[in-house]
Amino acid sequence: MKNKYYHFSYFKSVSAAAEKCLLVSDAMAYTADSEFLIDRKVFKNNLVMYVLEGLLWVEQYGEKHALEPGQGVLMRLTDAHKYYTDPENTAHILWFHFRGAGMEQLLEQLYQERKLPFIFQDDGLEDDFYKAFAIVQEDTDKKESELAGHLYGMLMRILSTYSFQEGHMDNMPVEIQEIIRYMESRLCDHLDLDAISRQAGMGKYHFCRFFKKHCGIAPIEYYNSRRMELACCLLKDPQKKIEEISEQLGYLDISSFSKYFKNYFGISPSAYRRL
Amino acid sequence: MKNKYYHFSYFKSVSAAAEKCLLVSDAMAYTADSEFLIDRKVFKNNLVMYVLEGLLWVEQYGEKHALEPGQGVLMRLTDAHKYYTDPENTAHILWFHFRGAGMEQLLEQLYQERKLPFIFQDDGLEDDFYKAFAIVQEDTDKKESELAGHLYGMLMRILSTYSFQEGHMDNMPVEIQEIIRYMESRLCDHLDLDAISRQAGMGKYHFCRFFKKHCGIAPIEYYNSRRMELACCLLKDPQKKIEEISEQLGYLDISSFSKYFKNYFGISPSAYRRL
Repeated sequence: MKNKYYHFSYFKSVSAAAEKCLLVSDAMAYTADSEFLIDRKVFKNNLVMYVLEGLLWVEQYGEKHALEPGQGVLMRLTDAHKYYTDPENTAHILWFHFRGAGMEQLLEQLYQERKLPFIFQDDGLEDDFYKAFAIVQEDTDKKESELAGHLYGMLMRILSTYSFQEGHMDNMPVEIQEIIRYMESRLCDHLDLDAISRQAGMGKYHFCRFFKKHCGIAPIEYYNSRRMELACCLLKDPQKKIEEISEQLGYLDISSFSKYFKNYFGISPSAYRRL
Repeated sequence: MKNKYYHFSYFKSVSAAAEKCLLVSDAMAYTADSEFLIDRKVFKNNLVMYVLEGLLWVEQYGEKHALEPGQGVLMRLTDAHKYYTDPENTAHILWFHFRGAGMEQLLEQLYQERKLPFIFQDDGLEDDFYKAFAIVQEDTDKKESELAGHLYGMLMRILSTYSFQEGHMDNMPVEIQEIIRYMESRLCDHLDLDAISRQAGMGKYHFCRFFKKHCGIAPIEYYNSRRMELACCLLKDPQKKIEEISEQLGYLDISSFSKYFKNYFGISPSAYRRL
């Protein structure tokens, strides 16, 4: 399987149903073509390319990147792009195209943060490619879902150096940054949407839309999930009584707290503590 | 790792950024609680539960399902649901909650097709759970993306008995079924959007919206991808000249065909044939 010169191709239109819901590759190949040059305005697909040997040049959004062995790139091809091997150091590459609803929002986020094309370094990605090729060669009904799962895993591995959790505040409008800081500082105050919207200086309806657009979640859901996370932390302290935690979080009585907690996590605070 | 009575918990709010783009679990646990009973109106999350021992009852959408060891269920919890262990045959289960944009459209499709709750049989899913638990216990920055990739793979494995490609025509409006059949029967005619809309008896704008709503792709993209798939099939016949294929597909000359093919797949028809 690890033969570098293993030639492979898989060209298949994605079914309408799969396109709607799944992350599916529609082409994969290994190529070592010295004439290899792609110069496109728009192609409705995404691409992962990985260099095994030689030098690969990638151009997009006015920038030019040189990729060496062990490096790769994740690109959105709906904007103009160009890539080619260095004529004096022909590239051997592995690649696959992919699309489907499962990655759309993530790619949009990377684009908004100017992280595309996403260049990565990963010395062991070759095996993941060969595994994908092996799945494609299986002759089973499960192939499509198995491939989707495997490619999603590969993309997550590729993106593992991208932090989903940090640094994004800077890219958000200052109003969002401020209101998140406000909520974080008042986790124990049991705020409601009225209070949060008022602090944001917006009407409830407008505020919810605005917050959701930037954070992907309703403000009150964000606030409550952070409160529940805090509740879990507090429950980890065996010296702290559940009554105390309930009171600290601004609940009028322990049963309201327990009910909310159980509805959120599926088990009661005391059951959580016993885990 | 394979200890059945391994107790595990992972309760963590999903970050705003991850919620927007990623498939992330916010809770996982093993429970063997005989009092286990969940009866909720709405919970903004999805669930996978898997039975190791005993009997688990699941109620949703007016139906009641009994799950035995080796069986599991994928549920959307935004509609009323109830589940509990059989008092005379206490269930030992593994479960995780998950949400994120990566699965939304797929779940909606399953729901539309009345496939939820999705009951499955899988004798080896236990190991996948333990692998997820192991990932969660890692203390690295990569945890969130690794977990997302792993869970997506698990969900695809769970859904592998659901066919993404067959049987969905029946659930589509008859107008869509007819126009797809029309396009399939005219793949060589090199139709344009005008011709296809006219056949559908709709204006172009309305037709594109209507088709995309049901198929997740623009009609002309669907048609062209099917034509390119056919081109690949024809190229597999070594006796067939590329000129002939170009003509068969309704291209005026071989260079238009080659250009379109290369733009679509990244390599020329002759390079594809040499693969």
